[in-house]
Amino acid sequence: MREMDLLAHIASRSADLGSFPGVVVGPGDDCAVVRTGSGDLLLLTTDHLVLGRHIAPDAPVEAIARKAIARSVSDIGAMAGRARWGLGTGALPKGYGSGDALFDAMARWARHWGCPLVGGDVSGVEGPLMLTVMVVGEPHRTRGPVLRSGARPGDGVYVTGRIGGSLASGRHATFEPRVVEGAWLADVLGERLHAMMDISDGLGIDAGRLGAASGVRVEIDGDAVPLHEGAGPVERAIADGEDYELLFAAEGDVPRACETAGTAITRIGRVTEGTGCVLVVEGREREILGEGWEH
Amino acid sequence: MREMDLLAHIASRSADLGSFPGVVVGPGDDCAVVRTGSGDLLLLTTDHLVLGRHIAPDAPVEAIARKAIARSVSDIGAMAGRARWGLGTGALPKGYGSGDALFDAMARWARHWGCPLVGGDVSGVEGPLMLTVMVVGEPHRTRGPVLRSGARPGDGVYVTGRIGGSLASGRHATFEPRVVEGAWLADVLGERLHAMMDISDGLGIDAGRLGAASGVRVEIDGDAVPLHEGAGPVERAIADGEDYELLFAAEGDVPRACETAGTAITRIGRVTEGTGCVLVVEGREREILGEGWEH
Repeated sequence: MREMDLLAHIASRSADLGSFPGVVVGPGDDCAVVRTGSGDLLLLTTDHLVLGRHIAPDAPVEAIARKAIARSVSDIGAMAGRARWGLGTGALPKGYGSGDALFDAMARWARHWGCPLVGGDVSGVEGPLMLTVMVVGEPHRTRGPVLRSGARPGDGVYVTGRIGGSLASGRHATFEPRVVEGAWLADVLGERLHAMMDISDGLGIDAGRLGAASGVRVEIDGDAVPLHEGAGPVERAIADGEDYELLFAAEGDVPRACETAGTAITRIGRVTEGTGCVLVVEGREREILGEGWEH
Repeated sequence: MREMDLLAHIASRSADLGSFPGVVVGPGDDCAVVRTGSGDLLLLTTDHLVLGRHIAPDAPVEAIARKAIARSVSDIGAMAGRARWGLGTGALPKGYGSGDALFDAMARWARHWGCPLVGGDVSGVEGPLMLTVMVVGEPHRTRGPVLRSGARPGDGVYVTGRIGGSLASGRHATFEPRVVEGAWLADVLGERLHAMMDISDGLGIDAGRLGAASGVRVEIDGDAVPLHEGAGPVERAIADGEDYELLFAAEGDVPRACETAGTAITRIGRVTEGTGCVLVVEGREREILGEGWEH
């Protein structure tokens, strides 16, 4: 089973969802966007965390809970939104003794990021520990939800923080979801912030997705990509997954750091007419669409 | 691990959630209730469906998908709400070949009940097939969310449909979530509809929960409980689970059937001052608090 194939199938099958009342954005972006009766927009997202797959089988309860919440909060940040409420469910292996501690830790991290758990479910299973977290968020007050489909030729392409080596280094379990940075970018850039997403499957594949969703070509300057120490070369780093940094396309000047959080912002490429995504290293172009890391 | 103990722990740990902005009802009712920026109330609920646990291991894809959606829709109906949007996630065993068909069927059933799937997630696991469905709903337009905590001494206690034998008969996989009935009761009874929930763990334990949440005593007249054929005696039927009928407490006259859906409504008892829940059969009272069926 190729999870990406199945997700693509789901997105294509949902193409007519826009005709449903209140559905603004269906499957395929970081969050769905829906509209309530009074016209409020809401962001909806959900993610699995499977022990032994998304985190080490011997990870402490605290780390498991933190990452389960952080992954969904990151999706909200990727739209420049604010996390408001969460639902947390756990499938616990038979005889699992840390259910209370696990749910307490999930509740604590959810509150930490502003989305207290207001409900959930729990089941005993003959299988690995698995948490499923749903977060409901609000889009940015003035900019609205920042989709991955808005990039335009002439935009610069940027990332927050550094890229690569997240799994090998253990950063994948301790990353800070970029909610402060996402909202700040929307504050500062406003309508010039054209498209944004979080990098979960690797910069290569995710930049390709942003380009494909926007109907444009993305060129990444390999020498400009800010790498974590030991994560290079860039060809490898952009195929690593789980960076959870923001990737965005914007028009005009962009600050070199997020003032409120201190996180670096680096220009790594540009948007042009066309299709596909290329990495340019020492003057040589290499097509990187579809390259990346699958969970 | 006792799932109910863990759920009770979660509810007690969440007692201060009311102080969070926009949290109206936290864990412990059929749905959480939150308030958006413009004041719209929303219902949030999520449920697991584990193959071999909530449905037979050899159940067809269609039945698995249907029940996964129906369980969450039932929670919305239990508050007299209307299902609006869904998120559907699947943990699929390695090598599972029916992922597309399963997600297609989930999407179809979600649309059938008015809550198209706008997002989700999928993971391969070394374990049983598991679906986690979240539904966002709107409360009844005039009555608002009907909680399980509003029953008052003097109320009658009622159920929709018939009780018992759901698992043995297979009805647990084909039940119709009582969304039409829930909304109709709120239309017709308005503020006289004091408390409502769906019967998922057995009438015995769920009536006890309604009483405990409301701070009242519930008396069930065993002879009045409408049983499915072959589901008796009543002592057994009220300990069966997965009825997914509505249990509600209301003041004054209540119609004997839902006009729009044709579903029978039966008075099965009354609410008094005090605590606990008793079953009265042939004039003998028996305490039934805590009796029921755990998934």
